[in-house]
Amino acid sequence: MKKRGASYERSGVLGLEGLGSFDRFLFWIKKSLKAHPEVKTEIGLYATIIQLTPRLGIALSTDGVGTKLLVAEMMKKYDTVGIDCVAMNVNDIICVGARPLAMLDYIAIQDVRKEFLVDLGKGLYRGAVEAEISIPGGEIAQLREMVRGLQPSMGFDLVGCAVGVVDMKKVILGDDIREGDLLVGLASSGLHSNGYTLARRVLLSRYRVNQYLGELGRTVGEEMLVPTRIYVRPAMRMLDSGVRVKAFYHITGDGFRNLRRAPSACGFILDRLPTMPPVFKLIQRVGNISNQEMANTFNLGIGLAVVVPKRDAKRVIQISRQFKIPAWVIGRAVADPEKKIIIPSLDVVGKDKKFFPLD
Amino acid sequence: MKKRGASYERSGVLGLEGLGSFDRFLFWIKKSLKAHPEVKTEIGLYATIIQLTPRLGIALSTDGVGTKLLVAEMMKKYDTVGIDCVAMNVNDIICVGARPLAMLDYIAIQDVRKEFLVDLGKGLYRGAVEAEISIPGGEIAQLREMVRGLQPSMGFDLVGCAVGVVDMKKVILGDDIREGDLLVGLASSGLHSNGYTLARRVLLSRYRVNQYLGELGRTVGEEMLVPTRIYVRPAMRMLDSGVRVKAFYHITGDGFRNLRRAPSACGFILDRLPTMPPVFKLIQRVGNISNQEMANTFNLGIGLAVVVPKRDAKRVIQISRQFKIPAWVIGRAVADPEKKIIIPSLDVVGKDKKFFPLD
Repeated sequence: MKKRGASYERSGVLGLEGLGSFDRFLFWIKKSLKAHPEVKTEIGLYATIIQLTPRLGIALSTDGVGTKLLVAEMMKKYDTVGIDCVAMNVNDIICVGARPLAMLDYIAIQDVRKEFLVDLGKGLYRGAVEAEISIPGGEIAQLREMVRGLQPSMGFDLVGCAVGVVDMKKVILGDDIREGDLLVGLASSGLHSNGYTLARRVLLSRYRVNQYLGELGRTVGEEMLVPTRIYVRPAMRMLDSGVRVKAFYHITGDGFRNLRRAPSACGFILDRLPTMPPVFKLIQRVGNISNQEMANTFNLGIGLAVVVPKRDAKRVIQISRQFKIPAWVIGRAVADPEKKIIIPSLDVVGKDKKFFPLD
Repeated sequence: MKKRGASYERSGVLGLEGLGSFDRFLFWIKKSLKAHPEVKTEIGLYATIIQLTPRLGIALSTDGVGTKLLVAEMMKKYDTVGIDCVAMNVNDIICVGARPLAMLDYIAIQDVRKEFLVDLGKGLYRGAVEAEISIPGGEIAQLREMVRGLQPSMGFDLVGCAVGVVDMKKVILGDDIREGDLLVGLASSGLHSNGYTLARRVLLSRYRVNQYLGELGRTVGEEMLVPTRIYVRPAMRMLDSGVRVKAFYHITGDGFRNLRRAPSACGFILDRLPTMPPVFKLIQRVGNISNQEMANTFNLGIGLAVVVPKRDAKRVIQISRQFKIPAWVIGRAVADPEKKIIIPSLDVVGKDKKFFPLD
C-alpha cells in the first residue's frame, strides 16, 4: 500500500519516488487542490484534513487490505480481513488527532454470490465495534473480469474510506517534536496489513499455509491472518486525559521510516526496541533477509508509535496497558535536520528512501 | 455498481435482493450502525449523512467506474475515466442537497510503472475542476495478483470516495413529493458508468471498438468512453437560487427505478421522455433488447432527474441550459403507494425489483 495524501511533498516516504509515471500522476492530482479554492484543505500527515468551520475539521483516509486478502483465500477464512480494513483506515485517522466516526467500504468481487461476502461483513462489523465507528454505507461492485484470486471466481478487493472529526486547535501536525522527547511503541499484533508480498514469498514458499510451527504457536496461515490491531481507544484515551501527544505514527509500509513524516527537524534513536516478535524472526531467518530489508518492510512488533515529552511516557504506557496492549519506551528524539532513524540493535539507519547498514 | 448506504432498508433498488449472501452481509453491516451511538448517522438516499453539529452535516459516498475501465484499456485512452470516477461520486453527493468538497481516489493497479497512471490522474483532475472539488489524498495499491485487465499486466481499478457538506435544515430527503410535482430530466452524456456489462456484450460482439458508426458520429469505443456528465454546478445553482428542489435522482444502475428511492408515496409517469439517444437505440436494435431490459439497465438519455413544484420547472430547465445541459420536463408525480414508474413510450412499468411490460 502506498499512501498518498499527506505526503505529496515528501514523496520520499512513498517508495514510489523516481517513478516517472507516479510523479506525473501527482502533477495532475496536485493541480486539483486549487480547483476548489474556498475549501481550506490542509495536507495532513496520515489523513487529509478539511476545515469546515473555525474550530471543526474532518479527517479523511482511504486504504485497502492488499494481498493479505490472498492469505484469507488460502485459509478459506474471511471473517477477519474486515477488521484489517477498518484498522488500516482508522489508525491513520487518529494520527492527526481526529476521532474516527465512520467508514464506507468498497468491495470489488468476482462473484457476488459467494458465501464469503457474509464473512467480510462480519469482519467489518467487528472492526467497527473495536474502532467505535459505524459503517453507514458502501459499495459492492461485481467485476468478474477485473479482479481475480488464486482460484477461479474467488477474487475480491476490500477497501475502506474513513472519516473522523478533529478540533482544528488540536490537530496533531508533529511540528513541535524536540530533542529528548520519548518515543513510546504500542505492540503490533503481528504483520498487520503490510509487507505481504515479501512475507508470502518467504513463508509460503517454505511452508504449507496450514503447517503448525512451534515458534509461532499456531499455523503459518493463522499467524499471517492475525488482524491488524486497532489503536483508536487507547489513542483517544491519551488525548482525552491530557497527555501531550506530539505525534502518532501508524507503522505501516516503510516500517519505522514512517517516523520521518513529521516536519520537525528531529530524527529518532530506537535503542530500546523490544526483541522482534517470532513471526519477524522467522521471516528473517527463513528468507535470509537483511536487517535493512526487514526495517524497510515490516513493523517489527510496533504498530503505533507515540511521541511525548519525557514526563508523559509513563502515562502513555499505562493507558495502553489498560487496553491490554503492551507498550514500551522504544527510543528518543534527537535534533537532526536529516531526520535519520537509527536502530542500533539492527545496525541500520533509515534515511530518505530506505534503511541502510550503519557504518 | 450496486450502491448501498442509503438503501439498506430498500434493497429492492439494489438488484442484489434475494441473494442470501448479500442479505447476510448487510445483517453485519447494519449492526455497525449501533457501534458508535453518539454519532447521529442519518441514512440518506444516495449518500450517507453524518450530522456533526446542529446545523452542519457531511455527506459521504463511494463508487467506482466499473467495467467501463475495460473499454479504456481497449481504446488505449485513459484520460477520461478519472472524470467518470469523480462524476459517479459527486452526482450522488448532490442528491441529498450537499455540496461536494473533496474526493479521495483509490487505484488498484497491476503494474504501477505503467504510463497510463498519469492519464488517470489527468482525468481525475479534469473531473475535480468540473465538480469544483479537490482531490487531497488517495491510495495507489500495486496488486499484481489481484487485479487484471484484458491484456497481461494492464489491470487496474479506479474508485472514489467523496465528501460534501450540507446544512442539516436543507437536507433533501425526498419526503415531500406530491401528486402534480414535475420531473425535470437533465440530459446524460451517453452511457455514463452503468450498464457496461450489457453494452459491451452487445456492441463489442458486433463491432470493432475502433469502428466508425454514422449514427453515432464517432467510433463505438469513443461513444462508450464519453465521460459521465457532472451535475454539480447546475444542481448547486438550483439550490442557491431558491428553486424548491424536492428530490434529485442520479440515474445510475437500475435506470429510472432510482425514482423509487424517495420515501414519498408517489410514483412517476414519464410521458414526456425525449427520444432515446442514438447509443441506446443502437444497443436495443443490435442486441434485440426488450424495452423492459433497456429500462432496467440504462439511463436512456437522462442523467439527473429533479422533482420540483410545477412553478419551478421552467427555472430548472433554464439553469440547466445555462450550463449547456439540455433539460426537459419528462414526467410528473402521481399519488401511488406502490411507487410505480410508468414509461408509456416504452410500454413498461417499474416496480419493486424491475421493469415489466405494461398490460
